Amino acid sequence: MTSTTWQSVQAEALRRIRSREWPPGGQIPHEADLAEELGCSRGTVNRALRDLAEAGLLERRRKAGTRVPLNPVRKATLEIPIIRQDVEGRGQTYGYRLLATREAAPPPEICERLSLKPDTAMIHVLALHLADDLPFCLEDRWINLRVVPEIAQTDLTKISANEWLVQNAAFSAGSFAFGAIAAPEATAKWLDCPIGAPLFTLDRTTWAAALPITSVRLCYIPGYQMRAEI
Amino acid sequence: MTSTTWQSVQAEALRRIRSREWPPGGQIPHEADLAEELGCSRGTVNRALRDLAEAGLLERRRKAGTRVPLNPVRKATLEIPIIRQDVEGRGQTYGYRLLATREAAPPPEICERLSLKPDTAMIHVLALHLADDLPFCLEDRWINLRVVPEIAQTDLTKISANEWLVQNAAFSAGSFAFGAIAAPEATAKWLDCPIGAPLFTLDRTTWAAALPITSVRLCYIPGYQMRAEI
Repeated sequence: MTSTTWQSVQAEALRRIRSREWPPGGQIPHEADLAEELGCSRGTVNRALRDLAEAGLLERRRKAGTRVPLNPVRKATLEIPIIRQDVEGRGQTYGYRLLATREAAPPPEICERLSLKPDTAMIHVLALHLADDLPFCLEDRWINLRVVPEIAQTDLTKISANEWLVQNAAFSAGSFAFGAIAAPEATAKWLDCPIGAPLFTLDRTTWAAALPITSVRLCYIPGYQMRAEI
Repeated sequence: MTSTTWQSVQAEALRRIRSREWPPGGQIPHEADLAEELGCSRGTVNRALRDLAEAGLLERRRKAGTRVPLNPVRKATLEIPIIRQDVEGRGQTYGYRLLATREAAPPPEICERLSLKPDTAMIHVLALHLADDLPFCLEDRWINLRVVPEIAQTDLTKISANEWLVQNAAFSAGSFAFGAIAAPEATAKWLDCPIGAPLFTLDRTTWAAALPITSVRLCYIPGYQMRAEI
């Protein structure tokens, strides 16, 4: 008696996808039918197909069954560390300088990005993150005081807004945009790089349910790379 | 009789994390105990905690139980579309030009990145992806012929290596690095932008089990942003 493992079911499913026995756009057999054909439980089939679906090689739809997608989309999981952890993960010593903080009304682009009225009470924070005492990342952040009023009583010279928010403004939705800019004059000064140098940027907004918490632009020094695994 | 839903269990768990009733670094109760306390099944507790773990707000360890992490790491899922889909998703018309393709030995940096010997048979592909007939992304790619020999018989003027590989070299592991560079002269020519303009870059390597398939650098036009959701 041989036992059919989920790994062997997965290998067989992969073989059928690659050989186009299960063609792009086509529906694959029901789990119950596959289980019968391959001589295993339905749970084993389900376990086998789960990874393939997560990797974007199968597409599961409620009621419509499972298909081989016409255009598979690869998904990567990106860990967004606190900047301190990013620096320490590179084997460097982390440092932090609060450059400026003030209560202010948000500029139009922040209002638009966070769907806020211009009279919303916000805090603007400018901070420099250091690696081995050298500039690493410039943080330019707006924080919504209506959602996290406690930040007004927080000493941001001691803990970065980045770290405080990750620890205290939990479970938000958010969006990211990665890009590149030519270093503007003020940014170049803080990052100690030539004006116009190519900088990797991360723009991030985070939300607690429907309430916008913060919008931040991180500008990294020339040569910085952000890594992720599929 | 009230029924306890996984949503209400999740809300209660979140409340305890935020209020530090479950403090950072501390272990939370066993699922069975939580189920009894909250009057629901263990499966409901499990379902409730799954999202929190995926969002990085809880840390599940085999045998060691579930903890509130000291330093929560936010995870974002990034969909890596075929470039054609990225262009079409922006409401633009996709175009593609194969600029050069040749069999060649890989340069040292590619050997190192893919752990390959210098005499590995590879194909080098240079291609330009267009949006509304304008340059969008320059693809500079090395492909390992030992793993995907079929690519040598593929007409890469008809289908991009990007698309062919996604459809045919399935289920690989991979790593990504995002960054920014100043446009080198040749890149600037293809992307029709000034030399030295800041370009967002994506370096990607993909693997089939332990076998390296491909290494690619994508250089996007100035102003391009890659978006993701938490």
